[in-house]
Amino acid sequence: MSATTDATETAEEATATARRRMADEPASRVARFGAEHPLVLDGGITLAPWQIAYETYGTLNAAKSNAVLVCHALTGDQYAASTHPLTGKPGWWDLVVGPGKPIDTDRFFVISSNVLGGCMGTTGPASTNEATGRAWGLDLPVITIADMVRAQAALIDHLGIPDLFLVAGGSMGGMQVLQWASAYPDRVFAAAPIATAASHSAQNIAFYEVGRQAVVADPDWREGRYLDEGTFPRKGLSVARMAAHITYMSEVSLHQKFGRRLQDRDRLGFGFDGDFQIESYLRHQGSSFVDRFDANSYLYVSRAMDYFDLAGDHGGVLANAFKGTKTRFCVMSFTTDWAFPTRDSRTIVHALAAAGAKVSYAEIESDRGHDAFLLDEPEMHAILSGFIDSAARARGL
Amino acid sequence: MSATTDATETAEEATATARRRMADEPASRVARFGAEHPLVLDGGITLAPWQIAYETYGTLNAAKSNAVLVCHALTGDQYAASTHPLTGKPGWWDLVVGPGKPIDTDRFFVISSNVLGGCMGTTGPASTNEATGRAWGLDLPVITIADMVRAQAALIDHLGIPDLFLVAGGSMGGMQVLQWASAYPDRVFAAAPIATAASHSAQNIAFYEVGRQAVVADPDWREGRYLDEGTFPRKGLSVARMAAHITYMSEVSLHQKFGRRLQDRDRLGFGFDGDFQIESYLRHQGSSFVDRFDANSYLYVSRAMDYFDLAGDHGGVLANAFKGTKTRFCVMSFTTDWAFPTRDSRTIVHALAAAGAKVSYAEIESDRGHDAFLLDEPEMHAILSGFIDSAARARGL
Repeated sequence: MSATTDATETAEEATATARRRMADEPASRVARFGAEHPLVLDGGITLAPWQIAYETYGTLNAAKSNAVLVCHALTGDQYAASTHPLTGKPGWWDLVVGPGKPIDTDRFFVISSNVLGGCMGTTGPASTNEATGRAWGLDLPVITIADMVRAQAALIDHLGIPDLFLVAGGSMGGMQVLQWASAYPDRVFAAAPIATAASHSAQNIAFYEVGRQAVVADPDWREGRYLDEGTFPRKGLSVARMAAHITYMSEVSLHQKFGRRLQDRDRLGFGFDGDFQIESYLRHQGSSFVDRFDANSYLYVSRAMDYFDLAGDHGGVLANAFKGTKTRFCVMSFTTDWAFPTRDSRTIVHALAAAGAKVSYAEIESDRGHDAFLLDEPEMHAILSGFIDSAARARGL
Repeated sequence: MSATTDATETAEEATATARRRMADEPASRVARFGAEHPLVLDGGITLAPWQIAYETYGTLNAAKSNAVLVCHALTGDQYAASTHPLTGKPGWWDLVVGPGKPIDTDRFFVISSNVLGGCMGTTGPASTNEATGRAWGLDLPVITIADMVRAQAALIDHLGIPDLFLVAGGSMGGMQVLQWASAYPDRVFAAAPIATAASHSAQNIAFYEVGRQAVVADPDWREGRYLDEGTFPRKGLSVARMAAHITYMSEVSLHQKFGRRLQDRDRLGFGFDGDFQIESYLRHQGSSFVDRFDANSYLYVSRAMDYFDLAGDHGGVLANAFKGTKTRFCVMSFTTDWAFPTRDSRTIVHALAAAGAKVSYAEIESDRGHDAFLLDEPEMHAILSGFIDSAARARGL
């Protein structure tokens, strides 16, 4: 981070300042909405003012018929195909979005926004609550996937785009895709929910609850007011990330990538400082994550996933969420994904079929577990390209 | 806990006193070894004095040929078939050990000891280091499964028992069974390693590393000196237990037992206080665990599992660990156990077969994941009974 420090400011205070600035004044574009465009949240409050940060790639055509929305996962952001301003790394879907890539920015106008509850410029717990001048912290109610999608719909309106050619995303991004298709069936021509589920499983809720408990157990969390107090629950958030990260990898990939290999030593050290490569790797995942992500956002965004239950919102029958839909769907899952297993994707496919939707489904062989949707998976990319080409022909693009 | 408090003592200080007393003067029997019987640890130190706490059930016969050792898992103890002195609950293998049960105390003399590194009376980090008068804390080197088994062998010697009719246990208990059969082939007539592995997987190391990081991140851990300072890393240890506990259950059992059902409410609360039953359950698992277990013991005993690699100890060839063995083996695994999957048991069975050992193997259908070995699983109990009967006949018992 580039925050300037002065002698009276600690490093964490400077970081807190930088975090708040990032939340209010991100490096990307921002759509700001005032009292005339409040956002009504499922949690029962009406949010105004609020804002949504986004990036775009490619050019909107004259008919405004080539817009694509890509939706990010738990710890993603609007930088789908551009350099992350904090880490300097390529965008999280750089392999999928770009010129000549499956979501071809030479053909499509791609929008990628930070989710509501996030920390990269869309209103979330690190954003300033204008009523108090302080960060929202836990004064926000729990955000839902439907709230995130409502915010995205307001952005699309703001951009003057009547409907989306495609909504695509993996994991929590896939939940948003499903919510879009359900809530705005006439505004989604094609939908690609990848490595996702129509409701969060008990096991996933359990893992995220462990992470949240690790965050709130950290005394530097300060009951959620750490940004005001110039602290940050680094250790707790790091443990949360470590726990979640295990679920994103397959047992096979952990075995192949690390096995029982030792880190920087020839023999076991008989101590607790991390003998194994897998330990160093996880610690690195944890410690680098806390430099780019807000702890309260982790609580909110993970909670949004827990709350997602599209069947529950439709009388317990998932097919009802898609009744009469004209959207065409491409559902994909990965064989070794145990966080969002194939079973969850089949449930979606069966419901779509029961609703009479056009749906194609592919279970992709991969060793890489849940994270496969972010990685170089040629079969996924080929299927997505084929689906998009076919949908584009159907739309006359 | 029954520690008396006085006005100058905080609750955690009283607890610390009780924890140290439990470690030094447990409610069970204790074998104490002085300088004449040191324990040489894999970590390179010679431990003396040291002690091992144990319980016994049944009667040793005149020929001393009916002794059975049961070995406990990570958070188990010597109270296999007797009431736990802190929780008041039945022993962890009460369904397996007792009169008329698979390990029949009417026929066998059953020994159950607390592992080295534990906190229930065998020397571990909460025990007093006589050299300093303080708790060992992190001054102990990492303990190995082989160290645990060496301590058990010393106990068996102390009890005047030449060899064991059976060694049995699940999970980390199964690791001890394998180590016994490998290190003392002439002292083990029959061996039942259940839901275990000959080496800890990268995924398991990863989950335990998350737990350890949660413990050491807790400022009340005090670099491991919390017993001296009258604190206890309750929150960190609780998070560690929650993370591990998820791995002991199957996705199916979590879904069946909890699903997305809400706890004490009709609708979502839009807050972070635990809407779902699975969250309440995990929090309870965490908070009750910290009342009965020592945080540093959790570090040591989990680390012992990580270090276990029986093939690695034998030139990378697991069969070499059992070369020429006359022990008969009964290996069991459970279909939904993803912490110690069937694959790990098959590896053991193949190595035993390659070593020419007598081995039977059963993969038991169960919805209950890893914890099945502790639960009412009639097929496991029937197979274990049959194996024991057959081995008893072979031994003329």
